[in-house]
Amino acid sequence: MAWNKVMPANPVVAIAGATGAVGQEFMQVLHDLDFPASEVRALASARSAGKKIEFAGCGQVPAGELTVQEMTSESFKDVDIALFSCGAGISKEMREAVVASGAVMIDNSSAFRMDADVPLVVPEVNPGDVSWHSGVIANPNCSTIQMVVALKPLYDIAPIKRVVVSTYQAASGGGAPAMEELYGQTKDFLNGDELKVEVFQHRIAFNCIPHIDVFLEDDSTKEEWKMVVETKKIMGDENIAVAATCVRVPVLRCHAESVNVEFTGEVSVEAARKAFEAFEGITLMDDCSSNIYPMPGLLAGTNDTYIGRLRKDSTVEHGLAMWIVADQIRKGAALNAVQIAQLLLP
Amino acid sequence: MAWNKVMPANPVVAIAGATGAVGQEFMQVLHDLDFPASEVRALASARSAGKKIEFAGCGQVPAGELTVQEMTSESFKDVDIALFSCGAGISKEMREAVVASGAVMIDNSSAFRMDADVPLVVPEVNPGDVSWHSGVIANPNCSTIQMVVALKPLYDIAPIKRVVVSTYQAASGGGAPAMEELYGQTKDFLNGDELKVEVFQHRIAFNCIPHIDVFLEDDSTKEEWKMVVETKKIMGDENIAVAATCVRVPVLRCHAESVNVEFTGEVSVEAARKAFEAFEGITLMDDCSSNIYPMPGLLAGTNDTYIGRLRKDSTVEHGLAMWIVADQIRKGAALNAVQIAQLLLP
Repeated sequence: MAWNKVMPANPVVAIAGATGAVGQEFMQVLHDLDFPASEVRALASARSAGKKIEFAGCGQVPAGELTVQEMTSESFKDVDIALFSCGAGISKEMREAVVASGAVMIDNSSAFRMDADVPLVVPEVNPGDVSWHSGVIANPNCSTIQMVVALKPLYDIAPIKRVVVSTYQAASGGGAPAMEELYGQTKDFLNGDELKVEVFQHRIAFNCIPHIDVFLEDDSTKEEWKMVVETKKIMGDENIAVAATCVRVPVLRCHAESVNVEFTGEVSVEAARKAFEAFEGITLMDDCSSNIYPMPGLLAGTNDTYIGRLRKDSTVEHGLAMWIVADQIRKGAALNAVQIAQLLLP
Repeated sequence: MAWNKVMPANPVVAIAGATGAVGQEFMQVLHDLDFPASEVRALASARSAGKKIEFAGCGQVPAGELTVQEMTSESFKDVDIALFSCGAGISKEMREAVVASGAVMIDNSSAFRMDADVPLVVPEVNPGDVSWHSGVIANPNCSTIQMVVALKPLYDIAPIKRVVVSTYQAASGGGAPAMEELYGQTKDFLNGDELKVEVFQHRIAFNCIPHIDVFLEDDSTKEEWKMVVETKKIMGDENIAVAATCVRVPVLRCHAESVNVEFTGEVSVEAARKAFEAFEGITLMDDCSSNIYPMPGLLAGTNDTYIGRLRKDSTVEHGLAMWIVADQIRKGAALNAVQIAQLLLP
């Protein structure tokens, strides 16, 4: 299905899941980027309908309160861009209504990411892929986004053979309730009170859980599988082998990743450093002599993908090791989605 | 220098650094293993001399209080085994006095680990190496110990070509003050108070620090270097390539490691599982269907090396991925040292 609508210069933007952690950040990012919206519509479940949310304004929309509306299939009349973050089930349920209304759905869930007719886009990596959408563009998984941003400038020097990645993922990946669980459990732990485990599979306070999303038949997790298949799709290269281990750590909202990359040709540390410095969206934060490297606890609220601990991995012929940090709610979700929306502007 | 003393069946044991986190654990482990000591002598700096420490007893030593004595070069008279954990500097300073007294020094510091005349021993892996000591046996680095325990049974199926490891290391690696810093900072963070950073390079509460020990010329850390060179020495194979990234996480006293191993020949998941189950010192804790895998927050005080998330890594010809957890103060330090002492008994 070809998409032949013309995007207006001042689109109407709907936020589906406006009361969630990512939904709240959609509004913050629309403001921060001064997205040229003519209207911003806050949608959520019936439970939140009528709730007032502060919005700092963007484009033609003044600062003020937005009233949350219940999301139904009627909610997308006149909407041009629908930013979705309310889980795969609701995205699937609403897709037809959104597309029928003429809006482009930018979906943060995993519902459509691997569909052949849905581009999976990280603006720094494959911006051109927005051109072939047919009403839905998928936002990749948070841990994939920051990794492919870091891989892209290196890939442009020499194609990548294999990536081994271990993640240090923040509580925010589980939404606002997960962040509250980390805080609440930590308090209870320090006070010697009984811990409540509701959002995560196990206690997260002072712990690491090597399990994110569900287990698959090969004993990998779906989160790990996402990093494997999404990386290939976004980078447009089926030959990139990714071995991923995804781990939840007691950090609030930035993911970190330890990554070893094996290239098909020479990529020196110096060349990688230059490529990172020249790349939009990356901040190289790498000075061992001054103990400077990115850390997830100290980068909340930032937009870039931060890279440090860059060094040669001499255990393979052409190898580099690095440490990547990005704000999971911003670059890993809301910011990337709004950046996709920017690509749609005329 | 050959060592030709006969170890008595009931040795006199000195604990150097008795008031530290590992020193305290030495005493707990001596009790737990009912080490057949005839005397246990608690040594520490002048600052701690006179302090009383509870000891639960072991061998011929009844439960009761030990009085800490100031450690001097005279402290080792009649001592048979000296368990050291007070930093590389003091180990170097005391080595001559200990060895001259006829005691065997089992040293937890990094002072002598790579010396050609000092065996580096993990009892499950290379127990035979105690035979050629000349007065000093080194206890490996904590993160190395748990990794080689996991690698050994696999190596016995097929030699290892390359290991990529990312660690999730507990505060306890920095000693008791580091554990207190994690607790104190976390409290202060939750209360909105100013955070004090004294032991670690940066805040550790709700953060990950990709930096343990000092940086080396190649921009790796000394902790990472230890995992590379100690693994080769303990496993007795210079051809094992290790790429390590060592990261401090806000966990109290167990280290976790995400490890991808590439073998020179086939090692199936099934064969690995059987080898782990048959191996002394390993507990396989691996049942995805019930969300069972080892976690560092829940295994404090245990003796074994725990392995979970065992799965095929199909990004290389012969690959496995796994997740390894062990108590850093016990198997990573005190327990391993006392197990070495057990190997010295007649």
